[in-house]
Amino acid sequence: MGKLTIVGIGPGDYENMTVRADRVLRECQTIVGYHVYVDLVRERYPDKEFLTTPMTREADRCRMALDEAKGGKDVAMVCSGDSGIYGMAGLIYQLRGAAAEPEVEVVPGLTAACSGSALLGAPLTHDFAVISLSDRLTRWERIETRLTAAAAADLSIVLYNPASRGRPDYLQRACDILLRTLPADRPCGVARSIGREGESRTVLPLGQLRDFAADMFCTVFVGNSQTQIIDGNLVTPRGYRDV
Amino acid sequence: MGKLTIVGIGPGDYENMTVRADRVLRECQTIVGYHVYVDLVRERYPDKEFLTTPMTREADRCRMALDEAKGGKDVAMVCSGDSGIYGMAGLIYQLRGAAAEPEVEVVPGLTAACSGSALLGAPLTHDFAVISLSDRLTRWERIETRLTAAAAADLSIVLYNPASRGRPDYLQRACDILLRTLPADRPCGVARSIGREGESRTVLPLGQLRDFAADMFCTVFVGNSQTQIIDGNLVTPRGYRDV
Repeated sequence: MGKLTIVGIGPGDYENMTVRADRVLRECQTIVGYHVYVDLVRERYPDKEFLTTPMTREADRCRMALDEAKGGKDVAMVCSGDSGIYGMAGLIYQLRGAAAEPEVEVVPGLTAACSGSALLGAPLTHDFAVISLSDRLTRWERIETRLTAAAAADLSIVLYNPASRGRPDYLQRACDILLRTLPADRPCGVARSIGREGESRTVLPLGQLRDFAADMFCTVFVGNSQTQIIDGNLVTPRGYRDV
Repeated sequence: MGKLTIVGIGPGDYENMTVRADRVLRECQTIVGYHVYVDLVRERYPDKEFLTTPMTREADRCRMALDEAKGGKDVAMVCSGDSGIYGMAGLIYQLRGAAAEPEVEVVPGLTAACSGSALLGAPLTHDFAVISLSDRLTRWERIETRLTAAAAADLSIVLYNPASRGRPDYLQRACDILLRTLPADRPCGVARSIGREGESRTVLPLGQLRDFAADMFCTVFVGNSQTQIIDGNLVTPRGYRDV
């Protein structure tokens, strides 16, 4: 029986991967994942067996990884960002069930809340909520409730999956919901293609974020009531009294 | 003029540090930080100048780092976990102000939401809130509002700084607030000393979490309405329909 390690590779570049993730990918025999994420690591670990599935076949991908490990291979399943936060670790545990075989290890990676905020400044120095705008697996009404609650509680908000080809206007819809509670001049930011070719960052007020052409490579940050723009950077103070 | 890099070193062990954080610490001349975090890296980078300050002197520590960089040194300021999430990056930007000197770079690291959830299973596969229970810089009423809002919106919740010697009963107080909204059998978990000597994990219901003897080395996870315990692991499903 082999072992299955679910590896968060971070935003996608080698430097933002952990030493541990790099070691697991060097030591494994088979790398399984969504083809876009596998392509991010293929060149650096060329002597591996690579198995990929398309985007919406998550359960198939996990079953494939579990089967390979049961068949004796040491398997690394790659997730972009973290392996747990909107990643495949949960589905692997669900599909493995009570059997407790094969052995599973979860290796964390930098989620976009960490890597995107570093690119934009320091928007998450205080409490925050992470909310995905994808309604493929979640009813939109639930997303709306969470946006409203986070804004009312003065949490900074990180929006994952703000838009895609099939959901081009979801960021606009989310901003319209937030604008019921938050002012149009609330400082916000967008991190795009973090750590990959064409990386970019935009700092802008919530009223303009509404009309920002976001895509699936974007992570969006909405500041709390204290968030400021300092020298072009999005900064949420912690509240130190002697500053 | 030197450069100041704020480095998230992750939970504390070398393997969970990013390749980029390791490179910055190897290349810098001076390492600045809270003495406990500096001690985590001192052995691996022995040929550096080390500057430390006690726990509550955050602004002094940041001014020291900025001054060293202005004086010509390449300085790395170490933060445990991420450099931005409750880290020093925000304070550095505040203190540097509009001067834009010295050059500042923020290197993200694994925050406890990532590293702790990997240790416990996969509790953050869906939307979540991160809330610190420390009221040193935040009024308790605000913390209470955020706990209540997060529970009502069915967000998983990660509690940072759940207790300390001066606040031994804060986790109990937080649980009592959550128990107004959430059932006592809600699956929860505690990750302690992640990646360090004596690392441990506990999975338990919210009603028992209330009486858990948490300390400053703990990070606490409260599941959402879908969170399950599978083979001893805390798992929040994403909602895939074919499982």
